[in-house]
Amino acid sequence: MDTISDDLARAVAAKMYESDRAARAMGIEILEVREGFARVAFVVRDDMLSGHNIAHGGFIFALADTAFAYACNSRNRATIALQCTISFTKPGKAGARVTATAVERAKGGRTGTYDVDVVDDEGTTLAIFRGTSYGVAGSFV
Amino acid sequence: MDTISDDLARAVAAKMYESDRAARAMGIEILEVREGFARVAFVVRDDMLSGHNIAHGGFIFALADTAFAYACNSRNRATIALQCTISFTKPGKAGARVTATAVERAKGGRTGTYDVDVVDDEGTTLAIFRGTSYGVAGSFV
Amino acid sequence: MDTISDDLARAVAAKMYESDRAARAMGIEILEVREGFARVAFVVRDDMLSGHNIAHGGFIFALADTAFAYACNSRNRATIALQCTISFTKPGKAGARVTATAVERAKGGRTGTYDVDVVDDEGTTLAIFRGTSYGVAGSFV
Amino acid sequence: MDTISDDLARAVAAKMYESDRAARAMGIEILEVREGFARVAFVVRDDMLSGHNIAHGGFIFALADTAFAYACNSRNRATIALQCTISFTKPGKAGARVTATAVERAKGGRTGTYDVDVVDDEGTTLAIFRGTSYGVAGSFV
Repeated sequence: MDTISDDLARAVAAKMYESDRAARAMGIEILEVREGFARVAFVVRDDMLSGHNIAHGGFIFALADTAFAYACNSRNRATIALQCTISFTKPGKAGARVTATAVERAKGGRTGTYDVDVVDDEGTTLAIFRGTSYGVAGSFV
Repeated sequence: MDTISDDLARAVAAKMYESDRAARAMGIEILEVREGFARVAFVVRDDMLSGHNIAHGGFIFALADTAFAYACNSRNRATIALQCTISFTKPGKAGARVTATAVERAKGGRTGTYDVDVVDDEGTTLAIFRGTSYGVAGSFV
Repeated sequence: MDTISDDLARAVAAKMYESDRAARAMGIEILEVREGFARVAFVVRDDMLSGHNIAHGGFIFALADTAFAYACNSRNRATIALQCTISFTKPGKAGARVTATAVERAKGGRTGTYDVDVVDDEGTTLAIFRGTSYGVAGSFV
Repeated sequence: MDTISDDLARAVAAKMYESDRAARAMGIEILEVREGFARVAFVVRDDMLSGHNIAHGGFIFALADTAFAYACNSRNRATIALQCTISFTKPGKAGARVTATAVERAKGGRTGTYDVDVVDDEGTTLAIFRGTSYGVAGSFV
């Protein structure tokens, strides 16, 4: 069941997305946001392919990092990425629709830990990501 | 002094860059490549800014990852990123020219470890990155 | 249901544990091993406490790393840790019995990715760990 | 040249070491501490060997983590490890004397990033470690 916190999370996400030129330029859609949770997706375009003719790791990271950002900012406190780690498990194919789902694993004081799974439309896990967040001054709505 | 290995590294980089649509679309220039080493740069464009009005972490990662890729493929053996970690130390500003320099820290069997420093044109370190690479089948030239 | 692969995993673990002086010196017990999976535990002794009077991060890591090692060696191919990352979420208390559970997240070629959760006897998650493994020459049984 | 800050760092280290039972039980010596810097060492004992008959990764990590702890607490503000990453580059041999040297790479607000190199007495790099720290309430001296 959705809560007031989830409504706030969605309001924050809508506000963030307005000014998130990078996410929009990459064609990232915000599919679902709740407190401490976000799911986003994009399609691997030709201008996202690396020299190995697969999705450039930078764009796979950017998708995961976007899910992380919408999840860790969901309580309306401005929060930044301190440190992220990503394991690339399978190559992303041109034209694939790829979804990144961020869940909160730990929260304490001003810091948090989030896990993001990146999965394509055939159900293949392309990458697993873990981010450490840090709350700073400011809010969105 | 440059060596035959460095000439090979440059030939590999030239070949990789031809098919590296992602790097070209981000405006990444390959400034210098030697055996186990690469230096690349881009300018933070408006379509690379996140909701906090700073360079999206995904593009900072993509720049670092590109330096890593050119360094770890420099011996003409196809090599992929297995795992990467990035610490964001300062925000990247719109319009800044940002350079990523990758150096080889360890090499053994099919795996390697590379450190990448990401620095803007004021000398501020924006991020430090570490990548683990894995050699697969194939070569470039 | 257990499989022949799980029997092999247990035989490997028994053999590894015989020569694993570090695990025995830390009082680590191997609770359960299956293909790509391991669960181990120890009690936080006084000589494992750091200057903050909590479990030294090194011992929490060592417990997680041990679960990772028994999981990634479970197919009877000698496998080493290439890279590990750990997030400390809560302090470990003196005298607590702590369990680390390793699951395989990805496997491909000679490399693998494992997630390990470290939880105390009150159900508190003390740390989350992710390890990248690399298969080398040799076997156990 | 040493500064008043370095004197404080040494006073903090002396105080921390008194209650750091884990470091003393592992035979870790604190060789040098300055502001944002620490160098520590131990000898790989037989009870630190894993099933592969090399130094257990947990003890290599514990040594690096100890250098990190003394470096990030050196300003007399209680500081904890939030997240650490370690790459294992060569196995540690029984009887080797191993040194870990921590340097500060970034510092901002309550967080910091530290790099630790772990090197044996033959000059071989066994591991490279990176830690993210977080300042909490409390001081040492």
